[in-house]
Amino acid sequence: MSVFLDNAATSFPKPEAVYRAMDSMMREVGVAPGRGSYSQAIAAARLVFDARRALAAFFGVADSSRLVFTHSATESLNLAVSGLLKPGDHVVSTSMEHNALLRPLLLARSRGVEVSFVAAGRNGVVSAADVAAALRPTTRLVALAHASNVTGTVQPVAEIAREAKRCGALVLVDAAQTAGYLPIDVAELGIDLLAAPGHKGLFGPPGTGILAVAPGVDLDPLVVGGTGGNSGSGEQPTEMPERYESGTINTPGIAGLGAGVEFVRQTGIEAIRKKSGELTGQLLEGMRGIAGLQLYGTDAPERVGVISFTMEGKDPAIIGFQLDRSYDIAVRVGLQCAPDVHKTIGTYPAGTIRVSPGFFNTPEDIEHFLKALREL
Amino acid sequence: MSVFLDNAATSFPKPEAVYRAMDSMMREVGVAPGRGSYSQAIAAARLVFDARRALAAFFGVADSSRLVFTHSATESLNLAVSGLLKPGDHVVSTSMEHNALLRPLLLARSRGVEVSFVAAGRNGVVSAADVAAALRPTTRLVALAHASNVTGTVQPVAEIAREAKRCGALVLVDAAQTAGYLPIDVAELGIDLLAAPGHKGLFGPPGTGILAVAPGVDLDPLVVGGTGGNSGSGEQPTEMPERYESGTINTPGIAGLGAGVEFVRQTGIEAIRKKSGELTGQLLEGMRGIAGLQLYGTDAPERVGVISFTMEGKDPAIIGFQLDRSYDIAVRVGLQCAPDVHKTIGTYPAGTIRVSPGFFNTPEDIEHFLKALREL
Repeated sequence: MSVFLDNAATSFPKPEAVYRAMDSMMREVGVAPGRGSYSQAIAAARLVFDARRALAAFFGVADSSRLVFTHSATESLNLAVSGLLKPGDHVVSTSMEHNALLRPLLLARSRGVEVSFVAAGRNGVVSAADVAAALRPTTRLVALAHASNVTGTVQPVAEIAREAKRCGALVLVDAAQTAGYLPIDVAELGIDLLAAPGHKGLFGPPGTGILAVAPGVDLDPLVVGGTGGNSGSGEQPTEMPERYESGTINTPGIAGLGAGVEFVRQTGIEAIRKKSGELTGQLLEGMRGIAGLQLYGTDAPERVGVISFTMEGKDPAIIGFQLDRSYDIAVRVGLQCAPDVHKTIGTYPAGTIRVSPGFFNTPEDIEHFLKALREL
Repeated sequence: MSVFLDNAATSFPKPEAVYRAMDSMMREVGVAPGRGSYSQAIAAARLVFDARRALAAFFGVADSSRLVFTHSATESLNLAVSGLLKPGDHVVSTSMEHNALLRPLLLARSRGVEVSFVAAGRNGVVSAADVAAALRPTTRLVALAHASNVTGTVQPVAEIAREAKRCGALVLVDAAQTAGYLPIDVAELGIDLLAAPGHKGLFGPPGTGILAVAPGVDLDPLVVGGTGGNSGSGEQPTEMPERYESGTINTPGIAGLGAGVEFVRQTGIEAIRKKSGELTGQLLEGMRGIAGLQLYGTDAPERVGVISFTMEGKDPAIIGFQLDRSYDIAVRVGLQCAPDVHKTIGTYPAGTIRVSPGFFNTPEDIEHFLKALREL
């Protein structure tokens, strides 16, 4: 019995429609949109447009041209950070960030941007009051993960965004662990820049991501080049979304992502959330009964299905190895690309064992995992 | 009869093995390499490693870790240009460049890099002597396309690289139109940075590209973030290839690209070249017999299967439209993202009609196209 419990890294498996959309894009359409005016190129453009519109609607982005396709949430975060911030600007972030946001911020710091990291509580929650206290007149951006990739802790994004707005700062949210799992409406939450991977809760393939850019926000592109249109000028076009989509885009990936978000829409985010809550509840309940097992960040008011734990006297890496070899269970061990989070929750440098169920896991999967843990 | 003659934009169709490799990566492996130590993650890492090694061998890159996966040749060129050049550096390029290289160079110029563009002859060929004459003591880079995406003209890269080396400059080659069509050995040709798309002559899917970085050459990454390893540090890792592959990589795309390059290897680049030469020869011969049809760059000593032409008194866009609607033939019209090339060959701003046969085209396809042209 093979059990995949590393959905925080990438969701697996994907819905059948995702596999089919990718294969059909490759076999039947194949070509790149905007590179020709022939029928196949028009079909490709239409598929990409439909996926873009579906994702924009899903996140409450009114103008779908402002939803940009990238190749990962990491690229989206780099584009947002390096495209927006100039030397002298100030950014507020938190101690709960993944390297996908942390490293771009530290790189910006090396280029003259000032960065403040607000410390979360031991439970992983960042307080909006602490963010407010860190704001300055030069604060251009407040940047944070919607939910932690280590503890699953959900941050009070709407409240934090309200504080940021009061000071005229923009809000960048890394929705790597929440897109597809929690309802996200950028207007409602006050998000100016929303970065999300395509291959986690949105069920698209690896190699896809999005960045939603609020009207009026202009970023320097990360990559410039041919966009199919405006060929005559040496200048990068200002039109959206072409400004940020130079080169031949990942059409099979986008087709898969379009099918993925359609699966989420049809299933209903509430149904997905309920299923995730049930599996997570089953996990937590079972794990609380295991002696010497320590859970992290579980007293946060809101969480997604990402759980970190350690076992007394045992190296997380060994547990991960044994779960794989003896039980065919996939989990993630170590620092999960988020060293500051582990410093916050007190598990640096050995890290934790992270278990993250997905929509296609069953109660039997969880039972198999709990049984394995008890035996270890 | 549907005929695809826009292989210079993307090759279509792909070999069956490419479709299967992508689908199998999605269905059976799915996860991202380096993000876990469980069996599925190890299988993903192995597939990516095999594709990397195959591509490295194909281009004569001795250390496969220096072959970096990107998402397009455009991204590769941006990484090379913006990662290498500092204000005060000088670059020599040519009037035959695609916007994928031209726009990053002009962006670098706006940031204090000096850029000289050597003019090609009317036939599209850049002379090594002209490049040599443009070199300065501050020249850090000579950057050019191996073959033009408008005229198919192949540049004397080895000769140009020898001149560049004499002055201590590095050589960046955009192999968008030659990778998979001409033999390329980076050591033999003297290429320090080789950028290529995965989805043209290498038969991979859109969303893939490579950059080969010679030993000793260090580039600032374009994107920083999580790489799976070295999680503890805020600094971007220096290890190759992780330094340039932050975030979850495009595993299905890479699997497809691996299958694509294996197809090229098995078929043999000489067989591919021969087939391309035959189809191109048939095209040129047929087109030379059509009154009022003007060909461009055809007297160059070496060319690939990319042909540009105009028809007297006819707008290229109308010809493209009629070829699509009345004959179901896909070609590319206009400037093909390469305005300077059209200024060089004298076809700016209306551009040309570009026809680019691929490995899966047949002599019947070419005859169908020639017949259509005669009727138009």
